[in-house]
Amino acid sequence: MVVATQSTKSVEELCINSIRFLAIDAIEKASSGHPGLPMGAAPMAFVLWDQFMRFNPKNPKWFNRDRFVLSAGHGSMLQYALLYLTGYDSVSIEDIKQFRQWGSATPGHPENFVTAGIEVTTGPLGQGIANGVGLALAEAHLAAKFNKSDAKLVDHYTYVILGDGCNMEGVSGEACSFAGHQGLGKLIALYDDNHISIDGSTDVAFTEDVSQRFEAYGWHVLHVEEGNTDLEAIAKAIEEAKSVTDKPTMIKVTTTIGYGAPNKQNTAGIHGSALGEDEIKLTRENLGWTSETFEVPEDALNHMRKAIERGANYEQEWNKVLSDYKSNYPEAAAEFERYLSGRLPDGWDKELPTHTPEDKGLATRKYSQACLNKLAPVVPELIGGSADLTHSNLTELKCSGEFQKGAYENRNVHFGVREHGMGAICNGIALHGSGLIPYGATFLIFTDYMRAAIRLSALSEAGVIWVMTHDSIGQGEDGPTHQPIETLASLRAIPNLTVIRPADGNEVSGAYKVAIEQAKQNKPTLMAFTRQGVPNLDGTSMEDTAKGAYVFSCGFAPEELDLILIGTGSELQLCAGAAEKLKAEGKKVRVVSMPSWELFEAQDEAYRDSVLPKVARKRLSVEAAASFGWQKYTGFEGGSVSIDRFGSSAPGAVCLEKYGFSVDNVVAKAQEIIG
Amino acid sequence: MVVATQSTKSVEELCINSIRFLAIDAIEKASSGHPGLPMGAAPMAFVLWDQFMRFNPKNPKWFNRDRFVLSAGHGSMLQYALLYLTGYDSVSIEDIKQFRQWGSATPGHPENFVTAGIEVTTGPLGQGIANGVGLALAEAHLAAKFNKSDAKLVDHYTYVILGDGCNMEGVSGEACSFAGHQGLGKLIALYDDNHISIDGSTDVAFTEDVSQRFEAYGWHVLHVEEGNTDLEAIAKAIEEAKSVTDKPTMIKVTTTIGYGAPNKQNTAGIHGSALGEDEIKLTRENLGWTSETFEVPEDALNHMRKAIERGANYEQEWNKVLSDYKSNYPEAAAEFERYLSGRLPDGWDKELPTHTPEDKGLATRKYSQACLNKLAPVVPELIGGSADLTHSNLTELKCSGEFQKGAYENRNVHFGVREHGMGAICNGIALHGSGLIPYGATFLIFTDYMRAAIRLSALSEAGVIWVMTHDSIGQGEDGPTHQPIETLASLRAIPNLTVIRPADGNEVSGAYKVAIEQAKQNKPTLMAFTRQGVPNLDGTSMEDTAKGAYVFSCGFAPEELDLILIGTGSELQLCAGAAEKLKAEGKKVRVVSMPSWELFEAQDEAYRDSVLPKVARKRLSVEAAASFGWQKYTGFEGGSVSIDRFGSSAPGAVCLEKYGFSVDNVVAKAQEIIG
Repeated sequence: MVVATQSTKSVEELCINSIRFLAIDAIEKASSGHPGLPMGAAPMAFVLWDQFMRFNPKNPKWFNRDRFVLSAGHGSMLQYALLYLTGYDSVSIEDIKQFRQWGSATPGHPENFVTAGIEVTTGPLGQGIANGVGLALAEAHLAAKFNKSDAKLVDHYTYVILGDGCNMEGVSGEACSFAGHQGLGKLIALYDDNHISIDGSTDVAFTEDVSQRFEAYGWHVLHVEEGNTDLEAIAKAIEEAKSVTDKPTMIKVTTTIGYGAPNKQNTAGIHGSALGEDEIKLTRENLGWTSETFEVPEDALNHMRKAIERGANYEQEWNKVLSDYKSNYPEAAAEFERYLSGRLPDGWDKELPTHTPEDKGLATRKYSQACLNKLAPVVPELIGGSADLTHSNLTELKCSGEFQKGAYENRNVHFGVREHGMGAICNGIALHGSGLIPYGATFLIFTDYMRAAIRLSALSEAGVIWVMTHDSIGQGEDGPTHQPIETLASLRAIPNLTVIRPADGNEVSGAYKVAIEQAKQNKPTLMAFTRQGVPNLDGTSMEDTAKGAYVFSCGFAPEELDLILIGTGSELQLCAGAAEKLKAEGKKVRVVSMPSWELFEAQDEAYRDSVLPKVARKRLSVEAAASFGWQKYTGFEGGSVSIDRFGSSAPGAVCLEKYGFSVDNVVAKAQEIIG
Repeated sequence: MVVATQSTKSVEELCINSIRFLAIDAIEKASSGHPGLPMGAAPMAFVLWDQFMRFNPKNPKWFNRDRFVLSAGHGSMLQYALLYLTGYDSVSIEDIKQFRQWGSATPGHPENFVTAGIEVTTGPLGQGIANGVGLALAEAHLAAKFNKSDAKLVDHYTYVILGDGCNMEGVSGEACSFAGHQGLGKLIALYDDNHISIDGSTDVAFTEDVSQRFEAYGWHVLHVEEGNTDLEAIAKAIEEAKSVTDKPTMIKVTTTIGYGAPNKQNTAGIHGSALGEDEIKLTRENLGWTSETFEVPEDALNHMRKAIERGANYEQEWNKVLSDYKSNYPEAAAEFERYLSGRLPDGWDKELPTHTPEDKGLATRKYSQACLNKLAPVVPELIGGSADLTHSNLTELKCSGEFQKGAYENRNVHFGVREHGMGAICNGIALHGSGLIPYGATFLIFTDYMRAAIRLSALSEAGVIWVMTHDSIGQGEDGPTHQPIETLASLRAIPNLTVIRPADGNEVSGAYKVAIEQAKQNKPTLMAFTRQGVPNLDGTSMEDTAKGAYVFSCGFAPEELDLILIGTGSELQLCAGAAEKLKAEGKKVRVVSMPSWELFEAQDEAYRDSVLPKVARKRLSVEAAASFGWQKYTGFEGGSVSIDRFGSSAPGAVCLEKYGFSVDNVVAKAQEIIG
């Protein structure tokens, strides 16, 4: 095969080969693991970034940039090469040499919290495309809310590159079905159809007709037959995608994995490892590449770096739009700028209700409903909904309508029975970075369906609020498939996720105060609410809820305490009741309400010791959930009233009683511990 | 609307209405929650059970029965009504009156471990159809293995009824894409297309073309336009489905939710609650129903109970096939009967390798590979694979080929990048009840994608082996999206699931011994293996692994101990190294290896105290994972060498060192605790 030498190649080819060889060199140096070589994906990425994407390398967070998501995150070197070549400060050639090394700006998978220019964290397959749906949803909502007939303040595309792996994952199917339903026309996905996944040819497991499936979802579907070389066809397809405004577009781009590596292209071997010295030599020959390792031809760099000037112009043009907008629509402009600033409206939390024991007790999911609806009018950036359990989760914002095609200004999103998709979409909305506070709701047990997305909200600093109801065996008749047992523990174990299980109306208000504030600080919060009614207790506090745990009732000095009862959520009332009985027997008992472990751990030691004094080692936790993890607070001398088996189908009150969640049983366990 | 009265109706209509009114009456009595009224689904279920399904009510576990899965598990009363009407002993009319009550045989969702005649546990949407794929896979495999040209010993269908909710869930998409790829022709799904989910019309969130999507998956797709009444069309469609043998069939059956309830049909209101007295009266009038509450017309019962005789005949016919098979193929017959008996082959575990410290250490995933391949030839019922990480999880059985269309006798299943689908398919294989031991593999972190299925394996007593590799930050370069931190804790928290994290070759063999034995006892086991190499340690034991924890090294009486170091997996070596150093300083240190909390908790107290004596309260756990939960063993006076934050992208050894997993750091922490 005779090929043109480097010097006779077009600048486009030089650019594409620059991406390819930066990746080859970086992966060769880093070895180990399963980074993806973007040999086949480089042309589509180049066309996209060179001809279509609007972004400003010198201001990566410029609001109106097109969003780019590399859903096939194992190809992260593709994105690092693009960031470097187009002139982002976040990725230097030195960073590329440090690919996948300790402390580098170029980790194994794209991480938005590490590298400026990365929008979302990908790697777990299917998440990126689903995040992309969230980004496009955010754009559609903000455009509907802020744009005027003479002012397109919000106007950008969301581009996603995804692979076979992403398309096999259920989460992508859920999100793409939703995107098709919503007609998110500014979402454009390029499917790198290279027929290879880690196990080999997709023939071994994945022979469905992906294009037909996306058509079934209501997408506009295109096909580029020769994605390795046919830049015109790629550009034409993207043009065509942009011309269809009422449907998302999926462009299937057929490529060859490892394109250009004579012995390894089109094999699974290339998916999981570096090329190796010999094959690199052959690939260089094959593609006519003569630059040194980690070196980019000047022509290519000059060409790519034009993005800097382009980006400055884009931003300048948009600044003009913004400035006109400020003149013509000062109020809307102020609100828009508040959104972007991440500030909450002044006095937003004044609306949060407080309660006294005289207030008839309700299910905490009902207090959640009240909080959401008190907040919705004053915190207009709150947007979200439920995975088809709106009237069980009680998450409807009554001041707004349904987010639907043609009504994107509305804030009630029907996610459908798609928990995982919902999770990833909410992450995308949060990571749009425009101040929106997304919330997603389902039964607490079904966090199991969306756990990967919840974890990613914590990892990638997505300020999402997770509203989870039916939080214990109090769920009742639906039985053990629907009753969380280990669920709270499994969520508390996730780093950077704040879990709050409030006991009554005041604590629910406190939980929302924390959740909203944390969302603005890019921290997710998960709240667990009861299905069943609970009383408003004398001693709960909205303010103290923010501390995670506090003394609910006491009256004794630490050193005289016989026992500390620690309750959460619907079981705090049992602690209060048991404490009364125990005190009547002359026992010196403190009750601690502990809605959130994470918030408590964030307090200083003095505070923590004031609530759970080291000298008072006899402690009993009471929570209608697994005891798993409670020993941190109860130690060897304490115990737990808990349920360490699966639940049962029966009325919730019966389940609770049968499994020992009664004042009498708490008293009995307390007496055992006191001895 | 004038309708025929009950007495003039056909027996088919009486049967269908019997199903409907049993459900109406049971749900009315039970109230609360979101049980589904099978008004629209009753006709298809009746046709299926009356004309097609082969089963024996008096022997619910008869091997060659057709399998039936109600994937839309909230319609459980449909299935209880069918079980009662066709004469199963497991559901009496009294049981139906106890619908959703404490201790009843009729829980809120179908539970195979409660009610004979229920094949799998459904309710969490999408699981049932995916289980159905597993059931059909098991049938296909056993048929390919055991059937002879003159003997169809294994020959049954798997029928599934699923709804819109199931079809929105990603897990169903994953499993159905897989089923289409595999051409599982004896899987027939009836899609109850009633356009309503809990949030209202599917128009609010689900407007994709489901039929087209299934065609894209490679399914045979049919449509019954009038599923409420057109029994002939339903029967014809099922006939047609059976005639296509190389593709699974999806029959879209368009129905009206709440059919017959004049004010509530075709509304979401009917999804979540009972009809209420007035509407029941109107529905009775509308459908011409005059029987008393919970009463079934004799004609209907007589008709339905013919299933008993039919069933006995089916079984008798099959017994003849079996008996001929025994004569003609005694060896295969003996093996078949062993499969069904749940017995393991004699001496199966003799092949499990043992190791000495002289053996070069390998990654525990490599020992897992060795165990799988030692076992595969002698335990032929082992069948499974990976979610596209075969060569990372090292799960290929070298003695067998790929399970593919036309080669169902093989045992290496390529699940594709479909973790959740894989999980539910494995559950289905296990719950086929034919002695197969399914295993499913991915990276440990991606248990997050399939957690709902893992939980269901534990709840529904599915003897699955979960093979999870890359079990810590030792995973390395892929970074925090791929590095488990809280994952072990989150899995240990699941009731009835045994988690084992072996330290070296001997413990891996011990883990497999437990996993295989437990599979036969319908208990799932999850094993966590390292990516990186570990040494074979002096003191590990295959036998002791079964006890969950054991003294690895000591030499001191309990009361003289300064410290107990508790290690798991790749960190046991750090404990061993630290103990050497501490002993050299004169400290009296015991090292406990603790591969499995659950197995340890199952030991008697005397044994547990012999390993972790109550008098020895200074304890340090060492595990490259979150400390969450470890306080159960370390108490207030102990501590953990752990990682309580997300990891980093860097070579695994660097990650481990940086986050404190070194002998020196363990020694330092130990000294702190000893004081």
